[in-house]
Amino acid sequence: MMAEDRRTRVRALLDAVRAEGRTALTAPEGKVIADAYGIAVPGEELATDVEEAVACAARFDGPVVMKIVSPDILHKTDAGGVVVGVRGAADVRAAFHRIVANARAYAPDARIEGVQVQELLPPGQEVIVGAVTDPTFGKVVAFGLGGVLVEVLKDVTFRLAPVDGDEALSMLDSLRAAEVLRGVRGAPPVDRWALAEQIRRVSELVTDFPEIAEVDLNPVIATPEAAVAADIRVILADLAPAKRRTYTREEILRSMRRLMRPASVAVIGASNETGKIGNSVMRNLVDGGFSGEIHPVNPKADDILGRKAYESVTDVPGEVDVAVFAIPARFVAAALEEVGRKKIPNAVLIPSGFAETGEHELQAQVVAVAERHGIRLLGPNIYGYYSTWQDLCATFCTPYDVKGGVALTSQSGGIGMAVLGFARATKTGVSAIVGLGNKADLDEDDLLTWFGEDPHTECIAMHLEDLKDGRAFVAAARRTVPKKPVVVLKAGRTAAGARAAGSHTGALAGDDAVYDDILRQAGVIRAPGLNDMLEYARALPVLPTPKGDNVVIITGAGGSGVLLSDAVTDNGLSLMEIPPDLDASFRRFIPPFGAAGNPVDITGGEPPSTYEATIRLGLQDPRVHALVLGYWHTIVTPPMVFAELTARAVAEFRERGIEKPVVASLAGDVEVEEACQYLYERGVVAYPYTTEKPVAVLGAKYRWARAASKLRAEGPPSGRRRETGGPPGGGS
Amino acid sequence: MMAEDRRTRVRALLDAVRAEGRTALTAPEGKVIADAYGIAVPGEELATDVEEAVACAARFDGPVVMKIVSPDILHKTDAGGVVVGVRGAADVRAAFHRIVANARAYAPDARIEGVQVQELLPPGQEVIVGAVTDPTFGKVVAFGLGGVLVEVLKDVTFRLAPVDGDEALSMLDSLRAAEVLRGVRGAPPVDRWALAEQIRRVSELVTDFPEIAEVDLNPVIATPEAAVAADIRVILADLAPAKRRTYTREEILRSMRRLMRPASVAVIGASNETGKIGNSVMRNLVDGGFSGEIHPVNPKADDILGRKAYESVTDVPGEVDVAVFAIPARFVAAALEEVGRKKIPNAVLIPSGFAETGEHELQAQVVAVAERHGIRLLGPNIYGYYSTWQDLCATFCTPYDVKGGVALTSQSGGIGMAVLGFARATKTGVSAIVGLGNKADLDEDDLLTWFGEDPHTECIAMHLEDLKDGRAFVAAARRTVPKKPVVVLKAGRTAAGARAAGSHTGALAGDDAVYDDILRQAGVIRAPGLNDMLEYARALPVLPTPKGDNVVIITGAGGSGVLLSDAVTDNGLSLMEIPPDLDASFRRFIPPFGAAGNPVDITGGEPPSTYEATIRLGLQDPRVHALVLGYWHTIVTPPMVFAELTARAVAEFRERGIEKPVVASLAGDVEVEEACQYLYERGVVAYPYTTEKPVAVLGAKYRWARAASKLRAEGPPSGRRRETGGPPGGGS
Repeated sequence: MMAEDRRTRVRALLDAVRAEGRTALTAPEGKVIADAYGIAVPGEELATDVEEAVACAARFDGPVVMKIVSPDILHKTDAGGVVVGVRGAADVRAAFHRIVANARAYAPDARIEGVQVQELLPPGQEVIVGAVTDPTFGKVVAFGLGGVLVEVLKDVTFRLAPVDGDEALSMLDSLRAAEVLRGVRGAPPVDRWALAEQIRRVSELVTDFPEIAEVDLNPVIATPEAAVAADIRVILADLAPAKRRTYTREEILRSMRRLMRPASVAVIGASNETGKIGNSVMRNLVDGGFSGEIHPVNPKADDILGRKAYESVTDVPGEVDVAVFAIPARFVAAALEEVGRKKIPNAVLIPSGFAETGEHELQAQVVAVAERHGIRLLGPNIYGYYSTWQDLCATFCTPYDVKGGVALTSQSGGIGMAVLGFARATKTGVSAIVGLGNKADLDEDDLLTWFGEDPHTECIAMHLEDLKDGRAFVAAARRTVPKKPVVVLKAGRTAAGARAAGSHTGALAGDDAVYDDILRQAGVIRAPGLNDMLEYARALPVLPTPKGDNVVIITGAGGSGVLLSDAVTDNGLSLMEIPPDLDASFRRFIPPFGAAGNPVDITGGEPPSTYEATIRLGLQDPRVHALVLGYWHTIVTPPMVFAELTARAVAEFRERGIEKPVVASLAGDVEVEEACQYLYERGVVAYPYTTEKPVAVLGAKYRWARAASKLRAEGPPSGRRRETGGPPGGGS
Repeated sequence: MMAEDRRTRVRALLDAVRAEGRTALTAPEGKVIADAYGIAVPGEELATDVEEAVACAARFDGPVVMKIVSPDILHKTDAGGVVVGVRGAADVRAAFHRIVANARAYAPDARIEGVQVQELLPPGQEVIVGAVTDPTFGKVVAFGLGGVLVEVLKDVTFRLAPVDGDEALSMLDSLRAAEVLRGVRGAPPVDRWALAEQIRRVSELVTDFPEIAEVDLNPVIATPEAAVAADIRVILADLAPAKRRTYTREEILRSMRRLMRPASVAVIGASNETGKIGNSVMRNLVDGGFSGEIHPVNPKADDILGRKAYESVTDVPGEVDVAVFAIPARFVAAALEEVGRKKIPNAVLIPSGFAETGEHELQAQVVAVAERHGIRLLGPNIYGYYSTWQDLCATFCTPYDVKGGVALTSQSGGIGMAVLGFARATKTGVSAIVGLGNKADLDEDDLLTWFGEDPHTECIAMHLEDLKDGRAFVAAARRTVPKKPVVVLKAGRTAAGARAAGSHTGALAGDDAVYDDILRQAGVIRAPGLNDMLEYARALPVLPTPKGDNVVIITGAGGSGVLLSDAVTDNGLSLMEIPPDLDASFRRFIPPFGAAGNPVDITGGEPPSTYEATIRLGLQDPRVHALVLGYWHTIVTPPMVFAELTARAVAEFRERGIEKPVVASLAGDVEVEEACQYLYERGVVAYPYTTEKPVAVLGAKYRWARAASKLRAEGPPSGRRRETGGPPGGGS
C-alpha cells in the first residue's frame, strides 16, 4: 500500500472511532491498521453468525482462535470471550455460542458485532512490541521478551520513534535475555528481520498518527520463519501538545555566543551593600577579571564598586550582551521590558521565587515578556554562570579561574556548588559552569548546541532532573557526541528519587528505563552518581581517545592487578590477549616468578627501571590501545619516582605522536596523593586508595569513543551490526 | 525410612556403582536414591520387554514418558531414547521398539537394561534443584528457575549444604524472578514447602555422601500441589580431600591473644643496616612505642638499635610471644626449628620467595616444621602486622598510631599499603592491620575468631582473593556478625579478575555467584570495591546502629535531595512515609514553598536555625531511625556553622541516650572539606562533593544491622519470613 493510501485509510478509521466517542480500537479495527502498515497478524475474519464462523474456520485449514468482537468489551478474556485451538465444524459452532453467551452474561448491554475467527499461530518465542507516548520523549517504541520475562524482570528496551531497520534490530540485542532470540539449548533462532520489521512498522504508525497514544502487539509469536502479532491493541488519546517556542540552530548559536563571550554586561540590581546578591555578582565580575564592560544598574546609587550606576538599563551606553538580574522576583518582568527595549539578547535570572515556589503565573509572565522581545532567559532560580576563558564570573558564588576543557551545567544550585567545590579542590580545568534552574527558556539542548561548537570545550557534563524537550536534547546530543563527550547525571532515577524530583521542580520525572535507553542511543555517557559525573568531567578532557579495544594492566602489586581486572570487566573493557612476541618482550623485564600475560605483574620489589621499561613497551606497541597502571609503594620505587618516570614516558611518546589513555591506581602511604596530582596534571589519570575510579574513568572514555565511532575495531562482535541474511524488508 | 536404613541402602548402591567402575548413576539408580531420601519423583517402573511396558503404562492411568535405561548411555535424548506423552497400548508398543532401535543405532555396544516407563507430570513451573562440590565451600545446594531463565540469565542461588527448611525456603525468594513462584498474571503460586523440601533433601543426601559430586533435579515441575523431579542425575567423584590441620577455638584464641597482645617480640634477621627489612622492622617496633620487650636476633651483631642482639632466638631470655622473620626464604625453615625449640607460639613470616614465586616445596617444608612444633604462622610474603592498642608495628612499612575500632586484613601487600595510606589520610581509627599473604597457616577465619572477641575491635574489614576453607570462614563469620560487622572485599569477582587471581596466588578462584550468596548468608557485608571497603571500615565503627528502617532526608538543596533519594533506593533503604503529625512539625520550621514529606526540603536560603530545628526534630522523634543530611553552602549558613550545629545536636542527644546514625552530603566550595572532617570526628559520617558515599555507608550499616537482627521491624515484608501454611514437612 502506498504511504498516502495507508494514511488516508487509517485517518478515516480513527475519525470514525473518534466519532463514536471511543479511544480503544476493536480487534477488527486493529487488523485494518495492521494491514495498512504491513504489521504481520494472523489471517482472520469477522463472523457475524455461526455458519459464517464455520466457513471462516474451514478456510484457515487448521485450528483457530475465536474471540468476541464488541466495542464495549475491552478485556475479552475476562468476559469469557476467547477460545483457543478450535478445530472442526461442531467445535466451532459450540465455541461461537459459548462466546456470545458469556459476553451477554458479562455485559448485558454490550453491542456484539460478531466473533473473530483467527488462524492459530504455531508455537514460538513470545515477545512484545509496542509504542507509548512518553512525557519527555514523545513517541517511543518498546521491545521485550513476553511472558514472565517482561512482567517480572522488566526486560524491555526503548527507542525514539520512528526507528529504521538497523535501530529496530539493535533492540533485539539490547535485552538482557537477548540470547534467547538467537536460540538456546538447540532451539532455532527467530527471524530477526521479521521481528525488526514489526518494530519499525509500529514506529511508523505512531509517528504518522500522534493521536495514537499506545500500541501493543502482545504477544508477537516469533519463529524461525516469521514474527506475527497474535493480538494488536491500539489506544487513542487527545493530543494537546503545548507548542514550545523553538529557535533555529543559528539563532541559538548567535545568542549563546553573546551570552558566553560578552563584550558588555549589565547588572540589574547591582549593589554596594555587602551580603546582597547584587553586590556579590558585581564583585565577582570585577574580581574575576572580566575585561569587557560592566555596567551596574540601580536607580538609588550613583556608582557601585567605583563604576557609574545607571537608573535604567536603557540608559547604559552602547550595545549590551547580557543583563544579569539580581532583583526580587516581583520586579523582574518590568525590568525585563527595559532589557527588551535595549535589545539585549540574554537575561540571566538569578532570583528565585518563581515556579519552584509555586509562582507559575509570575514565571509565565516573565517568559511572555522575553518571547515578545526575543530575549533568551537563563534561569530563573540559579547561581548564575561562569565563562572561564572570558574571565567571566556572573554569579553570587566565589570566582573560579582554572581554565580548561570541561563545560558543566546543573539544574540545581546545590549541585552547582558541589561542582564548584570539587573543581577547586581538584584543579579541574573548566570552560564554563552554568546554572539552569527552572529552565523557563534556555535548556540543556541550547547549551549543548553552543558547547558543541565552542573550541574551548572538550567535554560537556550536565546534571539534570528532567528534560523539557527530550527530542531536542537527543538531536543536540547526536550532533555533539561525534565531536566531544557528553556526560549526563540524571537525578530522580529511582522511584523514590522521582518522587523527590516531583516535589522539587514540579517536573514530571520520566521513567528511568526510557531515559536510560534513549540517552544511550544518543551516545551520552550516563554517570551513575554525582561524584562519578565530577570525576568523568575532570578526566575525560585529560585522557587521549583510545584507538582500539586492547587494554593492558601493568602492576607492581598482584593484588591490585586482580582488582583492576575486576574493574576492567565491570566497565565493559577488554583485557588484551597478549600475543606471544609481546609477552616475551614483557618477560624480558620482569622477574621469572612475575606473571606476564595480562595483568603484567612486575612484582612488588622492582626498581623504577622495571616500571619504566614495561610502561614504555606498552606505549610503544601499536597493538596496545590503553594502559592501566597499578603502583605499589616501596622504598625501591617511591611514589614521586614512579610518577616522574611515568609522566616522562607518556610525554615523550606524546611528542612522537603516540597518544594512548593511561590511568593509574596508586596503592601506598599518603605520599601517593601528591604523586597522583602530579600525574593528573600531566595527562595520566591517577587515584590513590582505589582500583575502581581510574578504570571507571577509562570506561567512560571508551563508552564515548564507541559512541563517536573512534575505535578501529568497533564494539563487540555481537551487538549492533548485522550478521547474516539480507537487508530488512522494504517499507510499505 | 529411618536415617540409618536409608544410608545403608544408598551406601550399598553407590558401592555397587563403584564396583562397576562407573561414576554416573542410571535413572533407576537415581530413583532408588530419591526414594531413600524422600525426593519426590514421578511414579515409574522398569520394563524389560514390550508387554511389561504396556502393563506399566496401564497402571499409571494417563500419558507416560518412556526412556531408555542403559549404563552406557548418559545423554538419553541425544540417543533418541526418550519419548514423551505416550498413551494407549499401541503407542506404548511402538515407542518401546523405536527407543530400543534408536539406542542400538546410537551405541551398538551399549548394554540395554530396558525402558523406563514414567508418569507424565502435569504442566507447571520448571525449576532446577541441584548440588555441586565447590572448591572453596564444599557441598553447596543450588536452586534456580528452569528453562531459559537459568541458562541465559543465570538466575540461580546457592547455600551451604545441609540447609534446614527455612534456609531452603529463603532460596525461593533469592531469585531475581522470585515473583514467578508466587504466581504472576493470575497463575497460581507453586507449593513452596514442597519445593523447599526437595532442596532440603538433596542437601541431606550430599552431606551424608560426600562422594556424590553433583546432583541435578532438572527439571523439577512445581505446581500448586507438589514439586516433583522429572529427572534426577547423580555423579560420583573420587574424594581425596587434603585434610587441613585444624585448631579448636580455644587454641586459636590462645595463640592469637599472644600474637596481638605480645609481651615479648623477637626479630629474626634484625639489622642495623638502613634499607634492610630487618632494620625497618626493628625501627618500627621501637619508634612505634611498643612497651613490651624487643629482642633482635642476628648472629653477626652485638647490638641492634642499641638493644642486645642474640645469636639465636633460643638465647633470648624469658618467654617470647612472637618471632618476626626478616631473613631470606631459604633460611626460614632452619630458624623456625629454633623458634619451635624456644616454644614461641607465633611466627610472622615477612619474607617472600615461597608459593607465590612457585616455591611450593619450600613453603610445605616450613609448614611441616610449624605443625611439628605447634607454631602458628602468619604469612609468608607479607608486610607484617599492626596492633595499634599495643603500639605494635611489626612491619617494614611506616608506623601507624591512630587507635580505633576497625581491624583490617589484606591478602595482598599492595592492598595493605593502600589500607595504610587511606587510614592515615582520613585519620581512620584502627585496632589492627594484618597482612595475610600466602596464608600457609593463619587464615581469615582465625583472625575473625580473634577480632570477634577483641574488645578494641568494633568492625572487621578483609580483602581476600580466596578462602582456604570456606566453611571455617562462614562458621567464624556467623559467630562474629551478631557482635560486630564483617566487611569483605572479594577480589577476582569477574572472569577476567579470577584469571588474574589464578596467576597471582595459584589459588583456584571460586565462582563469584557462590561466594556472593554464601557470604551474604553468613551475614557478611560485601564491599563492591577497594575504596568502598575502606570507607565502610572507616565509617561503620563511627555510626551508631539503627533501630529501625525509617530513613529521613533533610536537605537544604532540593537537587541533593533528589540524588540522596536515588541513593537511598539504590542501597535498599526505606524512605520513611512521614506521619501527618511529624510532617506538620517539620512544616513549622520550613518556608511555605519548601517541601515537607521526605526528603524534607528546607530550601537553600535558610539560616542555621532551620537546619538545627529540623535535625533536632529528626533526632527527637522515636519513629525516625536514621538521618541523611544534604547541606548547601550559602553565606547564610556557612559550612563550619552547619558542621558545629549538627555535631552539637548529635552530641546532646547522644548524652541523653538517643543514638541514631546520621550521615551527610555537603555540597559547596572547598570549605566543606574541613566541615566534613570535623563532623566525621564527631560521629557524623560526612562527605563533600558526593551524594552517593554517605548513603552507601549507611546502607552498609543497615545490611549489618539486618544480618545481626538489630532492627526492630526486621527486613521487608516479603523475604525470609514464613507467610502461610504449616511448617516444612518432616525429615525422611
